[in-house]
Amino acid sequence: MDTQENKPKIMEDLEKAGITNLRTLVMINWKGKEYRFVPRITITIDLEKKKKGIHMSRLIESIIETVEEETGERHSSIEELEKHILEHLKGKHTYKRGEIWMETELVVPRKTPVTRKQTMETHDVRIGVFNTNNDGDNGKYGKILEVKVIGNTVCPHAIDNWGKTHIQRAIGILEIRTDYDNEVELEDMIRCVEDSFSSEVYTLLKSEDEHWVVDRMFQNPKFVEDVTREILHHAKQRFKDCEIKARTISQESIHRHDVVAEGSGKV
Amino acid sequence: MDTQENKPKIMEDLEKAGITNLRTLVMINWKGKEYRFVPRITITIDLEKKKKGIHMSRLIESIIETVEEETGERHSSIEELEKHILEHLKGKHTYKRGEIWMETELVVPRKTPVTRKQTMETHDVRIGVFNTNNDGDNGKYGKILEVKVIGNTVCPHAIDNWGKTHIQRAIGILEIRTDYDNEVELEDMIRCVEDSFSSEVYTLLKSEDEHWVVDRMFQNPKFVEDVTREILHHAKQRFKDCEIKARTISQESIHRHDVVAEGSGKV
Amino acid sequence: MDTQENKPKIMEDLEKAGITNLRTLVMINWKGKEYRFVPRITITIDLEKKKKGIHMSRLIESIIETVEEETGERHSSIEELEKHILEHLKGKHTYKRGEIWMETELVVPRKTPVTRKQTMETHDVRIGVFNTNNDGDNGKYGKILEVKVIGNTVCPHAIDNWGKTHIQRAIGILEIRTDYDNEVELEDMIRCVEDSFSSEVYTLLKSEDEHWVVDRMFQNPKFVEDVTREILHHAKQRFKDCEIKARTISQESIHRHDVVAEGSGKV
Amino acid sequence: MDTQENKPKIMEDLEKAGITNLRTLVMINWKGKEYRFVPRITITIDLEKKKKGIHMSRLIESIIETVEEETGERHSSIEELEKHILEHLKGKHTYKRGEIWMETELVVPRKTPVTRKQTMETHDVRIGVFNTNNDGDNGKYGKILEVKVIGNTVCPHAIDNWGKTHIQRAIGILEIRTDYDNEVELEDMIRCVEDSFSSEVYTLLKSEDEHWVVDRMFQNPKFVEDVTREILHHAKQRFKDCEIKARTISQESIHRHDVVAEGSGKV
Repeated sequence: MDTQENKPKIMEDLEKAGITNLRTLVMINWKGKEYRFVPRITITIDLEKKKKGIHMSRLIESIIETVEEETGERHSSIEELEKHILEHLKGKHTYKRGEIWMETELVVPRKTPVTRKQTMETHDVRIGVFNTNNDGDNGKYGKILEVKVIGNTVCPHAIDNWGKTHIQRAIGILEIRTDYDNEVELEDMIRCVEDSFSSEVYTLLKSEDEHWVVDRMFQNPKFVEDVTREILHHAKQRFKDCEIKARTISQESIHRHDVVAEGSGKV
Repeated sequence: MDTQENKPKIMEDLEKAGITNLRTLVMINWKGKEYRFVPRITITIDLEKKKKGIHMSRLIESIIETVEEETGERHSSIEELEKHILEHLKGKHTYKRGEIWMETELVVPRKTPVTRKQTMETHDVRIGVFNTNNDGDNGKYGKILEVKVIGNTVCPHAIDNWGKTHIQRAIGILEIRTDYDNEVELEDMIRCVEDSFSSEVYTLLKSEDEHWVVDRMFQNPKFVEDVTREILHHAKQRFKDCEIKARTISQESIHRHDVVAEGSGKV
Repeated sequence: MDTQENKPKIMEDLEKAGITNLRTLVMINWKGKEYRFVPRITITIDLEKKKKGIHMSRLIESIIETVEEETGERHSSIEELEKHILEHLKGKHTYKRGEIWMETELVVPRKTPVTRKQTMETHDVRIGVFNTNNDGDNGKYGKILEVKVIGNTVCPHAIDNWGKTHIQRAIGILEIRTDYDNEVELEDMIRCVEDSFSSEVYTLLKSEDEHWVVDRMFQNPKFVEDVTREILHHAKQRFKDCEIKARTISQESIHRHDVVAEGSGKV
Repeated sequence: MDTQENKPKIMEDLEKAGITNLRTLVMINWKGKEYRFVPRITITIDLEKKKKGIHMSRLIESIIETVEEETGERHSSIEELEKHILEHLKGKHTYKRGEIWMETELVVPRKTPVTRKQTMETHDVRIGVFNTNNDGDNGKYGKILEVKVIGNTVCPHAIDNWGKTHIQRAIGILEIRTDYDNEVELEDMIRCVEDSFSSEVYTLLKSEDEHWVVDRMFQNPKFVEDVTREILHHAKQRFKDCEIKARTISQESIHRHDVVAEGSGKV
């Protein structure tokens, strides 16, 4: 007996019902190279008022079957894998609105600025795909991509007034919401944020590289507001047909609290 | 020299600039009794495109001066304290949109269900006040109240089919958005969520109380979808002129992942 | 029937069994003034091999009864409250080793360095009391006090070599383990850590105060290793008959990772 | 000029100085198959009293060079990779005691208990290697392996007394400290913990599988103390020449707090 199909005591449409905090191994083939991730996955669908519950195990089967049976060949990006899971789910469970999120990290190779040594930079990313207006036909797919990048701020007020200043780690977050087919690459988004700090940062820095970063920070003082505006500016130049959100959090070295600035735009 | 007043390199309006993760002692006098909290505070204002930055220290002064000088007499709730801070800030810094959030916990006394012993129940709460349409006059104040309450779900599908079932801790979240003057009490919101689980839970349970809770859970099996619908239902009956959001997360005892259901309504 | 008293399937002594993540309101009367906290509490006792379980509700009753019935008059510090709970528990449950921890925050008033404005500084603290060698008599009480204080590091290598430097937020942790009766005040421990950074930090800083902090940071460059050594040094001078642990974590502004230094001593 | 080589103001030996929260891509070749991880890495060495600081960038170079240049061929496990990093570091920086930790997750394939469907189970793991007594010669290598596995507890007291019970998610943690050469496999450690709960749990469960898990939970009621004792028992049978620690945390479905039990042993 499928209790889920019963009429519920309280009849209310629910926007989302599903799974969260599921972690599993996924593989994609991006530009001819295989990448593996163990993302934290959230997948939800809507639930109409006359049914008591959704069939949770079908959501998990959609993830496992899409991930396992096709061994990474068919998915050229995390967002494509997510779209495949939502498509696969359509054969198992009716829904009008489906949504899937993966939170993971991207490791990007870089060269250090002076000694040109190899270094690896790791960034948190969050990728969501949603399927809407989904009545009988296949509906419309959209996506949200988010990157969270570490950098720094250098206080312009202090440097202007006293020649010296305070410096601190800052976190820049860029979110792009757009149609599924609009090509937006996470690495380009990361670049937009990196280029907006007083200086980009590196995992490895030999003494000459550190000198370069320190110089760059002092030449380039920025409030948290400046960093947010630069992220918006870079994203507007780089991407099209999308909604953009930017947010910067600066972990002040002269305070116990953080400062924050947020903005948005449309191109 | 106030670098903040300079024209920025990139001219973009920012929705929010301010302080986050500030913790300080606040006092309120609620229904004739003094309460103290050490909330985590976020306060932001908008920044127009032609100015480089906001004056962060004025936000902090508004908090400290409102909190310190008036020693809890004048603030009859956290939301009133927040409104006073936003009003105080108006004398120090122009803004069109101001917003303040406090995250803290509420400790509520209860009696255990059978032995009637005294027990104390602690809930996470989050209170936001915002001031908008603020051009010359005093604008309009709104508020968002959120409570996060611990309870449980008991699988109805399992109990219907096999007489036995799986049970787990669940977290119910209720958010109310309304005009500042609409009276909504956090304790009533907590009750709406507690009453929606398979059973409410208690910090102290003697053996007879535990028996009562176990019985109640088995008489009252609920999916995460049921709990979310009940929260919506209770909130719609209890409050008026507000937007309601409900979200339940169930920490499944038969899985490594959580299940989740979300809904909303308007009264 | 008390299942807890049964012989367990596997007979192994357990060092600790009890409660964790319990939050409740506690009050103390410190130097004539009432203070309230909502700590996160852990309380455990040992379990001998021939019993299946401990009686968890008696641990909770000990907390609630000690906290509630005596309304803060009798407890002159968090550690004294904890000792009272362990003593109270002795009348309810036999144990050879009992241990209780409270994690909370301390809000300390300060004056800003130049403008002498009132500011409030909030620090995480963690206080443990344990009762051992507890066979028939009352055993011996010990305590562990920990403070976690925010400050900063300023790279001495960069300033020595290039006149400029990188600066970042740092977290200093000091732990003192000693006999219960040895008077060690959390505020003195906080001072030991604050005085060890390149500069202490403040929640409120007017422009002149900020200038003072920036100057102090540049006059006082320190590696994370220097900060840890200073904390040890200050604690050795300030306290006696105790074991000291110090740990500093610096949230590098030129890297994505943190740097860390740890040391210990005995006086 | 290497400021690190200077005499420090306060001369104290430090146990640990180094890097924490570094994330990078690592590859190992375990039993002929390539595995990739993005662990959170901590690496520290001791610092003698007469030197101001360690050379942090050499620790990072040791990680990057060991990871990058050898492309996973030479490392047959995470612990071997860690040993290689500590060995590599010896050529770059003198130390008496070195220690490296990687925190990551292990994804293990399983079959569901009845329908025998493929499912993937993800567990948090933490692997430390340390090199001590390291004066001139190569010292001695030891290791600590930790697994954190999700399962459940089912209250035996409730089921004995009332036929019904409360059930909840629990987390079992097993730590093994042993010589580097003692073969201890993480998957075997995970099995020890899984077998100690009221039932193991699965990411995918079809209705028949769920029935099996629910039945198993009711046949197998366990306190948190029972689970900890079973983990110790399984580990003592499975491994030799090691120190064992076990800890279980049960997220009670009838309380807001958790219950916990901890024990240890030696084989």
